[in-house]
This record gives sequence, C-alpha cells and structure tokens, in this order.
Amino acid sequence: MITALEPLPPGAVRLEDGFWADLQRLNAEVVIGHCEEWMLRVGWIGNFDLAAAGEPFEHAGIEFVDSEVYKLLQAMAAEIGRTGDEVLEARFTALSERVAAAQEESGYLHTAFGRPWQRPRYSDLEWGHELYCFGHLFQTAAARVRSGRGGVLVDVARRLADHVHEEFGPEGRVAVCGHPEIELALVELYRAVGDVRYLDLARLFVARRGRGTLKPIEFGPAYFQDDVPVREAEVLRGHAVRALYLSAGAVDVAVEDDDDELLGAVRAQWERTLARRTYLTGGMGARHQDESFGDDFELPADRAYAETCAGIASVMLAHRLLLATGDPTYADTVERTLFNAVACSLRVDGRAFFYANTLHQRTAGQRPPEDRVNARAQAGLRSPWFEVSCCPTNLARTVAELAPLFASKTERCLHLHQFASLTVTTELAGSEVQVRMRTGYPDDGDVRLELPLGLPEHTSIALRVPSWARAEATLVVGGDEPVAPPAETLTIAGPLQPGAVAILQLPLLPRFVTADPRIDALRGQLAVEKGPLVLAVEDVDLPNGVTVNDIAVDPAGQLHDTGDGALVTVRMLPPSAQESWPYHRQPVRPIGLDQVTTHQVRYRPYHRWGNRGPTTMRVWTPGPPPQPSPLADEQQITSTST
Amino acid sequence: MITALEPLPPGAVRLEDGFWADLQRLNAEVVIGHCEEWMLRVGWIGNFDLAAAGEPFEHAGIEFVDSEVYKLLQAMAAEIGRTGDEVLEARFTALSERVAAAQEESGYLHTAFGRPWQRPRYSDLEWGHELYCFGHLFQTAAARVRSGRGGVLVDVARRLADHVHEEFGPEGRVAVCGHPEIELALVELYRAVGDVRYLDLARLFVARRGRGTLKPIEFGPAYFQDDVPVREAEVLRGHAVRALYLSAGAVDVAVEDDDDELLGAVRAQWERTLARRTYLTGGMGARHQDESFGDDFELPADRAYAETCAGIASVMLAHRLLLATGDPTYADTVERTLFNAVACSLRVDGRAFFYANTLHQRTAGQRPPEDRVNARAQAGLRSPWFEVSCCPTNLARTVAELAPLFASKTERCLHLHQFASLTVTTELAGSEVQVRMRTGYPDDGDVRLELPLGLPEHTSIALRVPSWARAEATLVVGGDEPVAPPAETLTIAGPLQPGAVAILQLPLLPRFVTADPRIDALRGQLAVEKGPLVLAVEDVDLPNGVTVNDIAVDPAGQLHDTGDGALVTVRMLPPSAQESWPYHRQPVRPIGLDQVTTHQVRYRPYHRWGNRGPTTMRVWTPGPPPQPSPLADEQQITSTST
Repeated sequence: MITALEPLPPGAVRLEDGFWADLQRLNAEVVIGHCEEWMLRVGWIGNFDLAAAGEPFEHAGIEFVDSEVYKLLQAMAAEIGRTGDEVLEARFTALSERVAAAQEESGYLHTAFGRPWQRPRYSDLEWGHELYCFGHLFQTAAARVRSGRGGVLVDVARRLADHVHEEFGPEGRVAVCGHPEIELALVELYRAVGDVRYLDLARLFVARRGRGTLKPIEFGPAYFQDDVPVREAEVLRGHAVRALYLSAGAVDVAVEDDDDELLGAVRAQWERTLARRTYLTGGMGARHQDESFGDDFELPADRAYAETCAGIASVMLAHRLLLATGDPTYADTVERTLFNAVACSLRVDGRAFFYANTLHQRTAGQRPPEDRVNARAQAGLRSPWFEVSCCPTNLARTVAELAPLFASKTERCLHLHQFASLTVTTELAGSEVQVRMRTGYPDDGDVRLELPLGLPEHTSIALRVPSWARAEATLVVGGDEPVAPPAETLTIAGPLQPGAVAILQLPLLPRFVTADPRIDALRGQLAVEKGPLVLAVEDVDLPNGVTVNDIAVDPAGQLHDTGDGALVTVRMLPPSAQESWPYHRQPVRPIGLDQVTTHQVRYRPYHRWGNRGPTTMRVWTPGPPPQPSPLADEQQITSTST
Repeated sequence: MITALEPLPPGAVRLEDGFWADLQRLNAEVVIGHCEEWMLRVGWIGNFDLAAAGEPFEHAGIEFVDSEVYKLLQAMAAEIGRTGDEVLEARFTALSERVAAAQEESGYLHTAFGRPWQRPRYSDLEWGHELYCFGHLFQTAAARVRSGRGGVLVDVARRLADHVHEEFGPEGRVAVCGHPEIELALVELYRAVGDVRYLDLARLFVARRGRGTLKPIEFGPAYFQDDVPVREAEVLRGHAVRALYLSAGAVDVAVEDDDDELLGAVRAQWERTLARRTYLTGGMGARHQDESFGDDFELPADRAYAETCAGIASVMLAHRLLLATGDPTYADTVERTLFNAVACSLRVDGRAFFYANTLHQRTAGQRPPEDRVNARAQAGLRSPWFEVSCCPTNLARTVAELAPLFASKTERCLHLHQFASLTVTTELAGSEVQVRMRTGYPDDGDVRLELPLGLPEHTSIALRVPSWARAEATLVVGGDEPVAPPAETLTIAGPLQPGAVAILQLPLLPRFVTADPRIDALRGQLAVEKGPLVLAVEDVDLPNGVTVNDIAVDPAGQLHDTGDGALVTVRMLPPSAQESWPYHRQPVRPIGLDQVTTHQVRYRPYHRWGNRGPTTMRVWTPGPPPQPSPLADEQQITSTST
C-alpha cells in the first residue's frame, strides 16, 4: 500500500477547544445518549433481543435499522477511544452483548431477515440492505480495534464477515447489495484485523457493481450505481450516499492494491461531481424524490436535498483522496463540507437534526413535535428523530472520530489539514514532535503554532492554505520575515528550538460569491462567504413581516465583518400590489434602486440557521431587480416567410 | 342554479378542421384503441372479469386501475356522441358489460377491495382510491347521458351512487376519499339523471374535506387537502390533481347552491395559484416527490412535474369558473393550458405520452421501450404506457369532449371562447343562429366568421380577445369600420343579414416573455411565446454537438416569425475549459457578446417537442451571460466591531 500521506496513530490528535471540540463535547454529553434513548424507545435496539429470543416478533422500523444501532456503537467506540470513558464502556459492552446474542450459528446477523416468519436471507438485495447493515457492524468493529480495545463485537464482526465471504466470495453468488457500504467497511475491517479475505471480498464487490446484477427498480440502475462499472463511470450519479460510499470503498481498494487506474477513475468522477453537482455548502444530492444527484448543474437552492449523510460520505471520500494523493484541495472540500453540510444538521442543543439541508427555506416551517418520529424533509426545522433515521447516528460517529481529519504525515513532514485549538503529538524521522495549535478559527483567522519540543532538522510542518486565502495568507516563523504565498501549502521547516512559535494569518473577511451561469437556479444571485463558512440570512434578522423572499442584495454595497458573520446591504422589495399572472412581456417590478428601502442585515453562519424558531432562510440572495430594458419598448419583431 | 354562461347542448359545437379537430381524429383513430389494447394486455380490464368470476385472483396493477377503464369508457362515450360511431358503440357496450358483471349486490363496485381475499371496503381511505374510482364511473355515466344514449353503465353508476349515499351520506360515516374526484362526478351525475341525493352527497364531501378525517401520511394532510376546509384555504396546495379536482367539485356545488361564498373562495385560491404556483405553460405541480404544488414561486424549469392530469384538471376548473362568472380571462387559461400543458403529452403518432411535462430537459433521454410499461417521469421521451397510467386515458376523454370548451351562451349572446375551424349551431332569443368559424389558428391569426342565417336584432356574438392580443386585435363586421380594442371581448351585434361575415385579426408575432423575479429559478431568462403557444428550443435544431445548455439569447435581437414558431438570435457559449469548483468570487465566463458565435435558431411549439428523437430542450433561455461588474475589482469590505 502506497499513499501520499499516512494517517496518524489513534490519539495523536487531540481537539481541545473551539468549534469542533465543543461539538465533540456536545456529542459525548447529549447526542450519543439522545440516539440511544430514541432507539430504545422505537424498538430498534429491542429488535436484537426479540431476534435472540427466537419467537416470532414484529420487527420495529425499516429494514436497515440494525445499522443505526451499529453507528451508535461506532460513535461510542470512538468516544471511548477519545476519552477512556468507562461508564460509556459499560454501556457499549451491554449493548454489544444484546447485538451479539442475535447472531446466528452461521455468523449471519440481521433482525429483519432469515427467520421462518421473515423474508429469506438475501431475497431482496435491491432494497433489503442486509450487506449495508453488515458493513456498519464492520466499521464499528474496526473503530473498536482502532480505539485499542476489543471485545465481543469484534468477534461477532469477524464471524459475520467470514459468513459473507462464504456466501458472496469468489466461490459464492455473484451479487452486490443495493446500498454500497460493505466495500469500504471490509477494507476497514481488513486493516483492523489483518484478514486479507476481507480485502479480496471488497475488491470483488467493487468490481461487480455496474454490471446489472441488481433487478430493475423504479429509479433505474443508476440509483444504486449498477448502471456503469466504477472504472468506467464519468461522474457520480444516482443516490448520493450510495455513490459516495461506493467511491470511498473503491479508493480503499485502489490504495491497498496500488491500483492507479481505479484511483484515477474515482478522482476524475469526483472532480466532475464537484464542478457540476455540488452545492456551495459542499452538500450533494439535489433531488428529494430519490435522494439523487440529478443532472449536471441541477442545483436549485430551494429544493436542495443535500442529505446530512451525503455530506458525511463526501467527507469520508475527500479525506481518503487526500491521503491517497496528498493534494490539499481535498482538505478544502473536507472543511467546506464539515462546516456547511454536516455541522448544519445538529440543533445547538444536540437533540434535533436536519436530514435534508436546504439552501432556501421559502416558508417558515412549523416546529416538529419533539415526542415522535418525523418524516425526513418536511418541516423546515430540525427533528428529534425520523422514521428513517440514518443521519443522527451518522453524525454521532463522525463527530466522535473527527480528529484523523486534522492531520497526517509523511516520514519527515507533519501535515496539518484543518485549523482548531488542538495538540498533535507524533514522530518525524525518529524524533518526537508536538504541535500546539491555538486559534479562534473560524471566527478569527490568526492561528498560533507552538512547538514545545522544537522541530528536528530535515523535518517540516505543512499547513494547508484554504483556497479563499491563497492570495493573502501569511506565515511568520519566529522572528523571520513573513512567508507570503500564493501557495496551497505553507511550510515550517526544521531545525527549530524547543518553544518555537509560528503564526499563520488567514484573511477572514466576508466576500460575495457568484455561481457558474450554467446553474440556472442561481443565476443573478449572490452568496456571502466568510473564511470556510457559507453565510445565510433568516427572516428573524429582517424587519418585522419581511421574509427572505422580499430582499435583494446590492453587490456594490459594503460588507461589514461582524466577527461571526457579516452585515450586508439589502433592499426590501415592496410587496407585489396584486396577484396576477407572473409572466410578462416586460420585466416586472422595474424598481429604481433609489425607490426601495436599504437596510444593513446580518448574515450568519449557515450551519446555525433554524436555531431561533420557525423562519425563512436563504443562502443565495438575488442581485438588484431587473431594470427596464430595451426589451420592453424596442423589441424588434419581424415577419419572414420561411 | 345561476351561472353567468350556460353550456350549449351536446353537439352544438362541431370542430371541423385544424389543430383540435386533427387531435380529435387522432384520438378516435389511435389513442382510444391504444389505451384499450394496453389495458387488455396488462390485465386492468381483465380484473373485472376475474372479480365477476368470484374466485380469488391476483389483481393487476395499482389499486385505482378501475378508473383507467372508466376514463377509457368515458372517452368512448364522448366519441360516440360526437360521431355516432356504431362500431365503437359495440365495443363500448361489450366493455360496459364486463364492468357491470363485477358489481356486487350492494351496488359496490371495485376490483381491488372487499372480497374475502382482499382488503375490506373503505379500510384505506387515504390511499385506496375507492371513491375516486367511483367518481370516474359516475363521470362516464354522465357523459353517456350527455351523448344521448343510456345503457347498462348508467344503471350501474346509479346503483353505485346509491350505495355510496348510504355509506357516506348524512346517515353514514363522516369520511372523505384520499383522492378528490367523486365530488365533481356526483354533481355531473346529478345533472345527468336528476337525483338530488347525489348533489347532497357532493356537498357533504366538499364540506368534510380539510377537517382531518384522513389518517396522517408521510406527505402531511395538505397532500390531500385535508389540512384546511375549502372555504378557508388561501391557495391550492398539496397534490396538484387532487387540489384541482376538489376545487372543480366545489365550484359545481357552489353553482348548484348559489353559494357565492364557496365560489368566491375557490376563485381567490385560483387567482393566487395562477400568480404564484403555475408554469408558463399553464402546468401545475412543481414537485416530483409528491406531485404537489410546492411553495409559492418554486417553479424550476428543469424539475417541472406539471403532470398531464393536472393540466387537464386545471382546464376543468378554469372552464367551470368561466361558466360560473363569465370572466373571459378563465378562457385564456383554458387555451394556454390546453395547448401547452395538455396537448404536449401526446406523441404525434398518438401512441406515447408524457406523464410529467418538464420545461427544461438537460440531458437527452433514452427512447423508452415501446413494448412494456414505464415509470412515470424517467425518460425524457414519451412512453406508450405507465405503471401508473392515469394520463393517457385522461387525455383520451378530454380530447373526445373538447367542444364544450369552445362556446357557451346567455339568452341573447353566443360566447365564442376559443378559435378553430368549427360550426356552432344554437338558438338565441328563440331564433336559430349558426356561426361558421374558419381559421388557421394558432399558426395564423385571421379568424373569419360566417353567419349563414344572419343574426337577429338584440342578439350578439362575443369573441374573447386573448390577453396577448388585447392591445392590437381588430374586428371588422361586414364593411364597417374596424372595432379596435383594448378589450377582453369584441362583440358582433345583430341584426345582420344571412351570409354576413366578420373578420377578427389577432396579432400572432413571436414575443419575449420574462418571469416575476420572485421565481428564483427563472431569473435572467427569457421565453418566447407566439399567440397562445409557448415555444421551445431543442438541440436537434442547434449546430451539431451543442445542447440547449450551451446557449444564451439576446433580448435585443430580432425575432423572426416562421409561421409555426420563431427564429431567435442565440449565442453559443464556448464549452467550459475545465472542470472546476463552480462558485467564484468573480463572475465566471465574463464573455463579451462580440466574442461568441451568433446563430439564428428555430424555436418551435413546446407541445411538439421530443417528437424527433432524444434531445435536450428548454423553454426558458438565459439572457446574456453576466459582464464583469464592479463586484470583481471594487468590492468593498470593511471590518467593524459589532
């Protein structure tokens, strides 16, 4: 296996303060418990007890709720690894044993299939999600090994993986699961326990996809990427989470196999997907109907699905590509997506979630009831739990295991990919190195790096310079002259004495952004970004009675930095005088800019929207309304005979 | 019952030549037979035979396929009334008898419910569509009576309606059907056979809706308009076909009851729906996921659902409002919707249909297989039949009974609402009047009216002036001076001698149209209309290799009339040099208009798109790409402490 960057050992990075450390604390104190309580309440944990008991029972929830329990266990495992919390360890062990009790003699483990009163095993590969659930169990086992502990769940996972190898391996049936996930999970399990059969099986699953082994479904074979083999595809397509998990698994296989062709195929698909099928937030998957990408440049703000799980899956893929290639622009995407497409999901109290992450809420949603499950994308406000509730547990496991996204290394260089108050302790060329990073980022662009042990000769620390800072970032090491890029990376080179300090300054002023004109739905609109954050405006910050549908932004107006956002000059459009047919020979509402009221309006981080009650919200705001044009009076019409 | 306009007796209007007469011929010769063949093949007609046989059977198709058979029968009934085709009469009778054989002793008639091996009657009012199917049978019976014939189906319908009255009437259960339709159908049946209990029942169903009698579903109660009572609603919402059928039924009840409050409520909802939730084509229902209207101004061209059935339902509602109020602008909507949201569905050979009517096809669809059923909105090309196939039969019945949309009257005035080569024979103030209209409309704006019997004193003929012609239409009666509006109506007043002639001239030149700026998805784009037709561009009319995603239109350019469309000056945008992140601090692709190639491109009637093989298509074309603006260089950013 050759990758450009290697991950640091577990525990090497400790997030200590600021945005992500706070989120990890909230995850540990609230989110994990919230998920466990809900899954006890709705019976998804109870499914395992009933399955173990062996009597006919009514399975609670959709077919794949086992995976939610596994993702919760993965979050717990990562959290235990992070903090050594022995109370949580006891909860983890107890829950693991309930899961283990449901495993069958053959190794098979699923609460919704295979018992005499249930559908037979593997009878519905298109929708049954059996291998998908197994994959989440494998990831949990791998996380458990990474956290330095073992236990019953690792054994359960190995027995299950052996069963899958027998059923679907080289001698087994030529088939894949309707929902990719097991591919990346098998490689993770292989890396954790070393059984090469798991890697072989992952390779097989990746190679089999796209060859039409799945039966036709309403949404077509692209929905589960069974239309084109991974090596031959041009762009990510179909169900976004499926496409991204599959790609992550393909990168894992490519890296293990030194398969440049496979890696290159996924890289090219990723580039095209970013260029044509990604929201400003990094969110992926435009369509509600089948949670799919949709066509190139089909990116309507007001119907952005941008599922939280797709954001997480995108981070997983981008991080894998970063390690495989060393290209820091992948870390840009990780950062954009984490802040704007993943962190957005969670309510500030940690007890409710967005499943879909729209970029334009036209009408203020109602408060969803806190005491029952909700549909996925109805309300316009976060819900405590969903009928299909993949996002909350996915968020919990992702937040618990954030640290590896922040740093990696080569033999002689420590790469710092993200900015936060943290400490990295690792070894470069045989010497221990420690970096203490201190920053108020993303509200403050000053990043201070302390090297209590210094930095040996012929080693270095590489700092990513985010794309928006490329022209203006500066790095000062000790009393040296500032190093000013443009560069994708700024480097601190050894030798440096113990106690050495370096200061990175990133320009964190708000800026207007426009979209490629091929994105029809965003034509003539502007967004505001500040550092890595996409900003948004909510009607709770507008004068009484005005919604975000009634404003236009003046691109020539000033943008004032407010620390955590921006003040933007907007113009309130007068309400339409009457209800009339909305298509006209002349531009409608040709409002002189001097005729409308101007306000300074606060735009805040998008990821925090919807935390102050029902509200309208938009990321993209129209520019000035159209002025009367020659169209109205001088449109030339000629008649010719053709 | 007081309405502003009364419908003419069946047979009073005969469409003789041109667009609609051709469509009626195609409907009679191809579409009706196509629908019958498919429903024999997929077993939807066979369901009735199996139900009649009384043995357990596997029901073919979704729960409501009975209604497709009924709509086919309605099309046949109307066609028999139109032409007196006795061969079709024999087919109608044979099929009616197969339906009748499945009716149960109680009057109940549904092939998917109520037998010992099926779900119980009325056990799933939310999704079962039982009363919906009954409604379509009632409409068929009413059409049969209107066509001057009776037969078994009228008796079957009455027995069924009596059963429904018993089950759901004043003494029955307080419930409604998840899919409105029975409301308008009961009023039609009442008008046909005179039993006032049917009107009473319709009134009850309208009044009960919106009071939460239906159980919660994923899409919320607005989906089937059970969120707010009809009298209290502000705008049409939820599933578009459901909302429109319900409104049509409410107007029918309001008219029968002289209930101005109810009529006024629906009118106000309709105005707001046209102003905020309607595509340029007249199409309604933006969302694929639940076939619903969506939010105000959520009208993306590339995800326009605009179901054919919603277009038909909109015509039904608008025509009812026209008769109820006499306001000719309702006839404008009927015309726009018929040409652009209904006629669009049918392939030129009459053997394939659009279910959804998008306004922007970004990628050329594949030819759907002609020999099997297809999903509803996948292909980008018309399909011969669908798994849920409401649209083909709805189109067949609508086209067969088009004539009543063209004219109505008061005691002394004949109102001509639409333009086509036709003859109307009726009676005004006791005298027979005949109007022969001759026109090449909509390709030609000259409309010639001949009055072979003249026009008695104190009578008149009122001609609608379409909104787009209001400023420039002229009417010349005999050798008189032309009457030039602006007016919504131009009037030919009696007395006139036998053989009198009047000429109406409507300006039929192509014109650019822009959208209300609140429709974010259409900002900065232009459409081209010509007369009542929305035009569209397809890549088959562009230079080789160029798709409709690569063009911009110059609003200052000339529009050449081509007879059935327009030549439009467009600029081909060069393909993007590379795949890169599509959001930028500066406007991208700031192309000087002199730097790109200009072409004259043919825009053709939207309703004909997709008849020349797979193609991209758009109705709305972007204006010139953004020029470099002060934004790029002079954007001011200031930092303040707040």
